[in-house]
Amino acid sequence: MAAEESYCLSWRVAVEANNARGWRTVPSECVCHVESYMLGGQYESDVDAVVENVTAYLDGVVAADDDKDVWLLDVDDTCLSNLPYYRGKHFGGDAFDSTAFRNWILRGDCPAIPAVLRLYEKLMGRGFQVFLVTGRDEEVMGSSTAENLAAQGFVGHQRLIMRGPRFRGQGAVAFKSAIRRQLVAEGYRIRGNVGDQWSDLLGDCVGDRTFKIPNPMYFVP
Amino acid sequence: MAAEESYCLSWRVAVEANNARGWRTVPSECVCHVESYMLGGQYESDVDAVVENVTAYLDGVVAADDDKDVWLLDVDDTCLSNLPYYRGKHFGGDAFDSTAFRNWILRGDCPAIPAVLRLYEKLMGRGFQVFLVTGRDEEVMGSSTAENLAAQGFVGHQRLIMRGPRFRGQGAVAFKSAIRRQLVAEGYRIRGNVGDQWSDLLGDCVGDRTFKIPNPMYFVP
Repeated sequence: MAAEESYCLSWRVAVEANNARGWRTVPSECVCHVESYMLGGQYESDVDAVVENVTAYLDGVVAADDDKDVWLLDVDDTCLSNLPYYRGKHFGGDAFDSTAFRNWILRGDCPAIPAVLRLYEKLMGRGFQVFLVTGRDEEVMGSSTAENLAAQGFVGHQRLIMRGPRFRGQGAVAFKSAIRRQLVAEGYRIRGNVGDQWSDLLGDCVGDRTFKIPNPMYFVP
Repeated sequence: MAAEESYCLSWRVAVEANNARGWRTVPSECVCHVESYMLGGQYESDVDAVVENVTAYLDGVVAADDDKDVWLLDVDDTCLSNLPYYRGKHFGGDAFDSTAFRNWILRGDCPAIPAVLRLYEKLMGRGFQVFLVTGRDEEVMGSSTAENLAAQGFVGHQRLIMRGPRFRGQGAVAFKSAIRRQLVAEGYRIRGNVGDQWSDLLGDCVGDRTFKIPNPMYFVP
């Protein structure tokens, strides 16, 4: 194996294991690796494997009939894919462009990630309350996000929880922890939690099990 | 890429991201993949990458002169390698054989993992207290472990903490959490924590940063 390919494989595993933190862009020598990973089938295979892990775990969990058993799903690159956007940004090799990214979100054109949509339908069918929790700004992106989710088949969830003015400027761990604490205070039991960023999955009240969807394109602190 | 190779890559990433839990053996279709991974250079590359992540983090951390700044390192497949043993067990494809494994440990022949030995020396050189914490049974394996570590260059650490009778039969998360709580109660600050199992790194008082060394050969709950 070429040294660069070996290095980039190591870098990608370090990202998924949460050893590499706080990185701003994909290392320039790994842009081609990430492109091949995202477009060549391995990314889909990895997402499928995570959803199989969730499904195996789900077989041992039954939702009570009090509507308090909850699954949390992140939105960006968990339910909906930003891959079409990142194709134009060297798969994360370019610095984050907040204006361009906001304009992309406002189009409401993010495609569903197929394996996660199947998981979503399974969770709904098994009587779990599904909460979609996203750091997207509610005021600016609320309607485009709700329409995008509905158009892609994410319908019937209990709540879509977005970042309101109270949490503007806070990191994802703080925002998502606050949301989870609130849900637990409302009497919900968080049975599972799925996200593409470790900041979706760390902090307070993380739930009985967490599952990390792969994402080598960007890091949200 | 062949479907099997793709599946095994996904399986390995799921293990490192802690999505796959509680598995007893390497899936039979992935034994050759794990063999190639462990012997073909990618494993060393991945361990080197983790140690580079630790080193980058270390550059922002200075040990105070009160001897209370601590790093925790696990022993098996973190400081010392059991790869020579697992070569005879289909790289984790065979079920765990407690008698054979104990006999292997009693030989005291585990080689150092070179990148972690370099990290160990760096930590000692920077004035951190290094504690080696292992689930190995103290009564049975105490002397062979201490001799093995010393022979491989792991000398001068603050303490080697092994599993005493009080923790026999307890899971690794419970045992290691109890040890960490005790260290914090003694006034130590856990600045970092390195292990090859998520059960080394989850639970109470996990430290300022945790680092996961790859290990696709076995899962310790």
